[in-house]
Amino acid sequence: MLSIFGLYIAMGAGVISLLFAVGLAKRVLREDQGTDTMRDIGQAIQEGAMAFLGREYRTLAVFVLLATVILAVFIGINTAISYIVGAMCSAAAGFIGMNIAIRANTRTAAACMVGLNEGLRVAFSSGAVMGTTVVGIGILGISLLYLIFQDITVVASFGFGASSIALFARVGGGIFTKAADVGSDIVGKVEVGIPEDDPRNPATIADNVGDNVGDVAGMGSDLFESYSSSIIATIAIATAAATTAPAFDAPMLVLPLLIAAVGIACSLIGTFFVQTGSEASMSKLLWALRRGIYISSALVIVGSYGAIQLLDVANGNRIFLAIISGLVAGNVIGFATEYYTSYEYSPTKRIAEAAQTGVGTTIIVGIATGMLSTLIPVVAVVAAILISVWAAGLYGVAISAVGMLSTLGITLATDAYGPVADNAGGIAEQAHLDPEVRERTDALDSLGNTTAATGKGFAIGSAALTSLALLAAYTFAINPEVTQAADLVINILDPFVLVGLLIGALLPFLFSAMTMQAVGTAAYAIVNEVRRQFREIPGIMEGTGRPDYARCVDISTQGSLRAMILPGTMAVVAPIAIGFILGPGPLGGMLIGSIATGFLLAVTMANSGGAWDNAKKYIEAGNFGGKGSETHKAAVTGDTVGDPFKDTSGPALNILIKLMSIVALVFAPTLPDVGLLTKLIGW
Amino acid sequence: MLSIFGLYIAMGAGVISLLFAVGLAKRVLREDQGTDTMRDIGQAIQEGAMAFLGREYRTLAVFVLLATVILAVFIGINTAISYIVGAMCSAAAGFIGMNIAIRANTRTAAACMVGLNEGLRVAFSSGAVMGTTVVGIGILGISLLYLIFQDITVVASFGFGASSIALFARVGGGIFTKAADVGSDIVGKVEVGIPEDDPRNPATIADNVGDNVGDVAGMGSDLFESYSSSIIATIAIATAAATTAPAFDAPMLVLPLLIAAVGIACSLIGTFFVQTGSEASMSKLLWALRRGIYISSALVIVGSYGAIQLLDVANGNRIFLAIISGLVAGNVIGFATEYYTSYEYSPTKRIAEAAQTGVGTTIIVGIATGMLSTLIPVVAVVAAILISVWAAGLYGVAISAVGMLSTLGITLATDAYGPVADNAGGIAEQAHLDPEVRERTDALDSLGNTTAATGKGFAIGSAALTSLALLAAYTFAINPEVTQAADLVINILDPFVLVGLLIGALLPFLFSAMTMQAVGTAAYAIVNEVRRQFREIPGIMEGTGRPDYARCVDISTQGSLRAMILPGTMAVVAPIAIGFILGPGPLGGMLIGSIATGFLLAVTMANSGGAWDNAKKYIEAGNFGGKGSETHKAAVTGDTVGDPFKDTSGPALNILIKLMSIVALVFAPTLPDVGLLTKLIGW
Repeated sequence: MLSIFGLYIAMGAGVISLLFAVGLAKRVLREDQGTDTMRDIGQAIQEGAMAFLGREYRTLAVFVLLATVILAVFIGINTAISYIVGAMCSAAAGFIGMNIAIRANTRTAAACMVGLNEGLRVAFSSGAVMGTTVVGIGILGISLLYLIFQDITVVASFGFGASSIALFARVGGGIFTKAADVGSDIVGKVEVGIPEDDPRNPATIADNVGDNVGDVAGMGSDLFESYSSSIIATIAIATAAATTAPAFDAPMLVLPLLIAAVGIACSLIGTFFVQTGSEASMSKLLWALRRGIYISSALVIVGSYGAIQLLDVANGNRIFLAIISGLVAGNVIGFATEYYTSYEYSPTKRIAEAAQTGVGTTIIVGIATGMLSTLIPVVAVVAAILISVWAAGLYGVAISAVGMLSTLGITLATDAYGPVADNAGGIAEQAHLDPEVRERTDALDSLGNTTAATGKGFAIGSAALTSLALLAAYTFAINPEVTQAADLVINILDPFVLVGLLIGALLPFLFSAMTMQAVGTAAYAIVNEVRRQFREIPGIMEGTGRPDYARCVDISTQGSLRAMILPGTMAVVAPIAIGFILGPGPLGGMLIGSIATGFLLAVTMANSGGAWDNAKKYIEAGNFGGKGSETHKAAVTGDTVGDPFKDTSGPALNILIKLMSIVALVFAPTLPDVGLLTKLIGW
Repeated sequence: MLSIFGLYIAMGAGVISLLFAVGLAKRVLREDQGTDTMRDIGQAIQEGAMAFLGREYRTLAVFVLLATVILAVFIGINTAISYIVGAMCSAAAGFIGMNIAIRANTRTAAACMVGLNEGLRVAFSSGAVMGTTVVGIGILGISLLYLIFQDITVVASFGFGASSIALFARVGGGIFTKAADVGSDIVGKVEVGIPEDDPRNPATIADNVGDNVGDVAGMGSDLFESYSSSIIATIAIATAAATTAPAFDAPMLVLPLLIAAVGIACSLIGTFFVQTGSEASMSKLLWALRRGIYISSALVIVGSYGAIQLLDVANGNRIFLAIISGLVAGNVIGFATEYYTSYEYSPTKRIAEAAQTGVGTTIIVGIATGMLSTLIPVVAVVAAILISVWAAGLYGVAISAVGMLSTLGITLATDAYGPVADNAGGIAEQAHLDPEVRERTDALDSLGNTTAATGKGFAIGSAALTSLALLAAYTFAINPEVTQAADLVINILDPFVLVGLLIGALLPFLFSAMTMQAVGTAAYAIVNEVRRQFREIPGIMEGTGRPDYARCVDISTQGSLRAMILPGTMAVVAPIAIGFILGPGPLGGMLIGSIATGFLLAVTMANSGGAWDNAKKYIEAGNFGGKGSETHKAAVTGDTVGDPFKDTSGPALNILIKLMSIVALVFAPTLPDVGLLTKLIGW
């Protein structure tokens, strides 16, 4: 059958993507690292990042082994293998991406000594390493496992493995980054009175590491999970919906992999269009990045049509429309996020204006802005659902998620570019580079803020659509005899489903509260460690004693990983518990409840946070009194509130809703027909 | 048939309740009004309240007439009559309750010149007028209409009428009270430099009126709606679930009215137990109020059992259990609210502690506390659902809401007592009464904060349960042929239902954002008016020119009523639009989506706000540096953010979810089988 070639093409695309990543990485590593001071700072960040990874992987190993044993015993050895492969793939992607990012910081700053275009090239290239690694490993892992086991229910566990890592990387990383930030500030700025980013502060490096941990590795693992799960969900739905058991390489099943392969090729091409003149304006810089994404998107549209023709998929034109609906929805959500969080537009300006009347109004207007900003993402997702359902039923919804994520290679590159540029700016400050150089890094940094916000919106939107696709796959899984999507039923009016839905709706609120509190707890641990080092290391304040950066990073890693045990456990245990206590239908209710509130809360928190951040920057740019004014102080406080909103709790919700959905899908075969309590109460 | 007597008993209870209210009101009005200054202030507040009511009723009249015509044309003349009766009953209850409250302010302050017990008696009596009026008018209105039309689908429109008034009173009142508060402060305290509550400030009276408008009339109309709708939903479900069309006075149908009647009697008895010694401690005061509620609750348990026996209801013991589950859940939610918002307990203390490290942490910890505080209310509602479903299916859920609200006569009395005591404290300050008197009013005020918070929790919990009961009634209404609850289906996996659910989940976020923004807009209108008066009225600053309080109240009323047009229209139009565009099933999805996020968001906002308020009070009581410290300033800012959370947006969500549910129920007969868009897309 011809379509088996689709699988090989997918694997080929994965290999090409990884080769491309290797080439890019080599090029980045060949770049000049700048002055000795810059090298020193870079060295310290690398040291810290290694300390973080070391500690994280030790904790992870315990968790992953435990889960592997449970899967092997209760479901099957192949499922356990898929799980461990998924976990390792995700860990590898994060490891590689972050390793390059922490090496690109100094090199970006150094390149800015030559010119803006050079700086952009280095920073974007390091982001592209992350992007191409994630998609390359993702498609390769799934294709290989699928070729070996030829059973998508087994391969689904790959997504669970990826989720496990994402839980630690995104939630733990999110707690880490804000805890380090706050902890470093409290002792350094407030107690000891040294400036931000001062190398004498033992937590400074932890702070820098945090940016990479949260925004690079966390974002990468988050989207790795969305990417893998959307493909898995599509294949699972296609398999379940087939009237007779389809060959594993039937066109409908191979199509999502081939679309992903097309997306990889188009993303690689797109990266070549990201460049600008030597001294470009902010809008030209943004356009340089946008151009890459647009060209990739346009190519994906053409390429997907080709892929559908190649596989000769039934109902091809309609499926094509579903793919486009996802692609467009992703872009619309990205734009909406930019509109609500960039100070080019009125919502963020209004927050800055409100800051003139104090902190209270800053917070209120910021939260109201975040809440209002949910409208467009919900409408975009709803439109994508309606169009793709019309086009191809539940399969359409799943493949529209694949479409949304198809250009991930380049969209993730622009996201991961942000923190690299951010850190380069910090290094330029610390190393006292030329004002001209700092102007360039500032331009790159400011652009990074916009792309980071857009990236968050994209991550949330794709998480919502992927979770819905997983929910559909889950429902097929608990109804093995059903092949028609219209025959699948989860009845809201069944009181147990209703109860499941209410509990599901509750979880994102608890999860957000816990992660916000965790930031406080972890920050406290860092404060104690920094105080100890200032007390015990001789010459630290004079700059003659070297602070133990690694120890500080290790402490905060430990703190953040410990603080996430409760929310993390909740995310894994809740779906299994509800499945056994209330039954498979109520578990479906729980998933939909958590997707609904999780999606809305995540958008609200991410956009409030992003808007506060940029309202502050807008004032710092000289508006409403500028830096140092009372208005600025109010905006700074808004940003403080926004930090855990946008960098910890908001993004953590993406993981929550996807993790619970994939856990449900993987454990579906083990669930009883009727839950224990449901049987007891009766209906 | 014997059970027709149940209806007469219900009417009798309504009449007794109203007579009791008249007696109490007379007693309150006979009380001494204190010094001339106090009379003056009282006069001004009354003047302002009348200005508010005048303006509000004019706006309302247009809205109500429009809705009446629409109902008469599209559904039927009887439905239109029910609607207008419901609207008038709700308006009357609010009018009477608020009228007594604004007259009890000065009298409470004056009674405190005699002793604490006297002050408590006057304040509580005025609250009891509100409580007994609401339940009296509610039960009388429903019973009479039901006796006349003998058709619950017609009577359902009574609930819609009540909702319409609640929308204006609760949402408009909530915007009014915070806008007046903020607007008065900005010009008075900041620009002109006169103290808070200074009679020279034209907006001071608007501020005082606002307390009554939002917390007395708003809370009253909110609970009037819950009370009426829970009874209506229960009768509707019992009617629909009967295998053969039941007589309108069948036991199952009369039972909710009889339980409500029992509740009224028990509440009246309970009010006699609310008294304390002449100089009681805070905890004794709280116990005085609690004792009344406990005794009423205990009596309701006994009385409901009697009612069930009297009507000889089938499956009586189980239904009895459902009633108790609602009653217990209501009390549990009240306790949980107190735990999370009173500074006697650790959550609020932790917010005060966090205030030591600045505003940022105050806000973060406060929001985290609000989010965490959703756990117990959700568990309580879920437990009530499971128990009552086991006991009596969907009928059980509805009658458990009736059980929860049965003691409303006294619980509402303790809630409405709060703002009266609050205003009495303000009047005592303004009139420079003896320190001893002010200590007494302070004690009553402080108690009022706790009961207000508990009342908010109770209002939210009952709104959630009532909305679910209405949802069940709605689903029966769109499936007229179904009599078995188990045969009712709203399928989450139907993509249109899913889309409805996502849109429903979105609405509370938009509604909250809009109401928060509305506070800002309305406050701005007040600022302009106050500035104008200071500019144009001669001698106003010297105290020789009298500010035009009524004009100021009218302006802010106008501002707040205008600001609520958009959110209000959304609440009424959204369910009808979704019903026609996507169909009746997706409308059910929308309702459940909005109930889920609305419930959680309302609890979060109300409890964050309450906790911030009391954290501030805890610091003012001398902890963490006390009044005037940096810690106190941070806590004050937290309270500023909390004000619109707890007094505007949070409570407005109760109305949103109930209003949309009742609109769906009333318009159910007019909906097409399949929505327009759904037909187009197909499934």
